[in-house]
Amino acid sequence: MRIGMIGLGRMGGNMMSRLRKKGHDVVGFDVSPESSRDVDSLESLISSLETPRTVWVMVPAGSATDTTVDALCGLLSEGDMVIDGGNTRYTDDVRHAEILGKKGIHFMDVGVSGGIWGNSRGYALMVGGSQYDFEKVSSIFEALKPDGEDGLVLAGPTGAGHFAKMVHNGIEYGMMQALGEGFETMMRSELIDDPAAVMTSWRKGSVVQSWLLDLFARAAQDDSTLQNMPAVANESGEAKWMVEAALELGVPVPVTATSLWARQVSRGAGADTLRVVSSLRAQFGGHITHESEK
Amino acid sequence: MRIGMIGLGRMGGNMMSRLRKKGHDVVGFDVSPESSRDVDSLESLISSLETPRTVWVMVPAGSATDTTVDALCGLLSEGDMVIDGGNTRYTDDVRHAEILGKKGIHFMDVGVSGGIWGNSRGYALMVGGSQYDFEKVSSIFEALKPDGEDGLVLAGPTGAGHFAKMVHNGIEYGMMQALGEGFETMMRSELIDDPAAVMTSWRKGSVVQSWLLDLFARAAQDDSTLQNMPAVANESGEAKWMVEAALELGVPVPVTATSLWARQVSRGAGADTLRVVSSLRAQFGGHITHESEK
Repeated sequence: MRIGMIGLGRMGGNMMSRLRKKGHDVVGFDVSPESSRDVDSLESLISSLETPRTVWVMVPAGSATDTTVDALCGLLSEGDMVIDGGNTRYTDDVRHAEILGKKGIHFMDVGVSGGIWGNSRGYALMVGGSQYDFEKVSSIFEALKPDGEDGLVLAGPTGAGHFAKMVHNGIEYGMMQALGEGFETMMRSELIDDPAAVMTSWRKGSVVQSWLLDLFARAAQDDSTLQNMPAVANESGEAKWMVEAALELGVPVPVTATSLWARQVSRGAGADTLRVVSSLRAQFGGHITHESEK
Repeated sequence: MRIGMIGLGRMGGNMMSRLRKKGHDVVGFDVSPESSRDVDSLESLISSLETPRTVWVMVPAGSATDTTVDALCGLLSEGDMVIDGGNTRYTDDVRHAEILGKKGIHFMDVGVSGGIWGNSRGYALMVGGSQYDFEKVSSIFEALKPDGEDGLVLAGPTGAGHFAKMVHNGIEYGMMQALGEGFETMMRSELIDDPAAVMTSWRKGSVVQSWLLDLFARAAQDDSTLQNMPAVANESGEAKWMVEAALELGVPVPVTATSLWARQVSRGAGADTLRVVSSLRAQFGGHITHESEK
C-alpha cells in the first residue's frame, strides 16, 4: 500500500527501505534537506497520498512528535490515519489520539524494537489501537516485522503499544546491567583468564543465551576487555517511565530502577549523596576520602 | 573414551545418555538402587575402569561432593582424573584439588549449564584446570557441548570453571527478575490486554530476545497469567556466592543482589524489617497496617 513516512533518521530511513523491499510504495519526508526525502514539506507529502491516507511518524519523542501531530491534525482529514512509531511516552498517546480523534483522524501507537538491525532482521512491533485500525494497515506491519511467528502484537487500546515498548526497554536495562555485573566480577577476579571468552562461550547451550549476549560477543571481538568503551551510559527515557508507571501501579521494580540509577550515577548523579556521606564521616571519624584515593 | 559417571540424577543421568549417544563408554554409579546405575558401589565403578582413570562427579554440591572426593582420593591413584561437574563453590575446588593433588590425582572443575534441555541441546561447559588436563579429556567435553562454535571454554586454573558458572547463574537471576518485573508491570496495567502475548511477541526482532523469554512463552502457553505458579523462588547458591565474591572484589552488583533478595523475601525473609517499620510508624503515627489490609 501507499504510505507516508515522516522522519528518515536511523530508524525511519531503514524502515522505509524495508517497506520498499517488501513492495510498498513509501513517500518519505524529513525536515533535513540532507536526508533521502522524496518531498520537501509535510504539505507535499500529504498531497502525494490519496484518501484515506496513512502516515507513519518516526521523529524524536516529545516536542518533535507533538509538533508533527499538531501539523498533521491541520493537514489530514476524516478517515485518515496517523501511526506514531517513535518512542513516545504512553501518556502522550492518549492526548494525541484525542486531538486527532476530534477531526475523525485515526491514531495508532507502535513500539518498535530492533535498532539498526531491524532493516535486515525485521522489527518487533507492539501496537496500541483498535482491532479495526490494526487490520487496515496489517500489510505494513507484516512487512516491517520479522519473518515467521512472533514479532507483532496488538497489545491493547491507545497507549498500549508504547506502554509495552517501555516495559520492553525496562527489561532490556535490567538484562544489560546483569550482563555487565557478571563481566566486571570476572574482570576483577584473578581466576578468570579472559572474561569475554567465557561470556562468548555462553552463546550456545547456556541459560543466558540471548541476542544481547550475541551483541556483547561482537563488541568484545575487537576489544575483549572493553577498556576503550566509555564507562558512561545515557537513557532514552523508557526505563524512567517504567519505574514511574510501576510506582503508580504499586509494583516493585527494583532491578529496573537499580539499572536506571547505575546509568544516572555513571553521568555524575549521586555525587552530592557521597558528599553527605563524606561530610558525616569527617564529622564523626575525622577522615575524608580524597579524589586521589579513587 | 571410557569414563565413570558418579551421580545419575537429572543432570548426571542425562549427561551419561548424551555421552553414550556420542559413542563414549560410560559406567554409571549412583547411591540410589532405583537409579539406572551399572554398578552398585564406588569400588566397583573404579575397578571397572583402566588406568589412567577418568571419573565425572555429578552429585549435589557441599557435603555430598566433599564425601565423594574424599572417597575417590582413597580409591584412585596417581595419573587418574576427577572432574567435578556439580555446582560446587569455587573456593571448595581449591581444597578438593589439593587433597587429590597430594596423591598425584588430577582435578578439573566444570560449570555445566543447560538444565533438563542439555541432553538434546548440549551443555554449556566452563572448565577450570590446566591446559594439559583440558586437552586430555577434550573428547568428553566435545560430546557434551552443543554442536558448532561456543558452549565450551577453559576459563582459567582450578576454581575458574565454577567461578564462571557462579557468575553465569548470577546473571541469570538478574535477567529473570527483569523479565518478571516487566510482566508484573503489564499485569497491573489496564492498558495491556494480555501481558504474556506481548512478551511472547518479543521472541522475534526485539532486543530482549533470549532463551529465557522462549521458556517464559512456553510456560505461559498453558497459564497465560501464571496465576497457578507459586510466587516463591528458591536459591541454588550461586547468586549468593557471586554477591559474596563481588563484595570481596569491591565490585558493586546491585542487580544480582536485588534479584537474590527478591527470592529471599519471597520465602518470608524481610518480615522482621517490616515489623520494625510498622512498630516505628505506630510509635510516631499511631497506625498499624494489619495483615487483613494486604
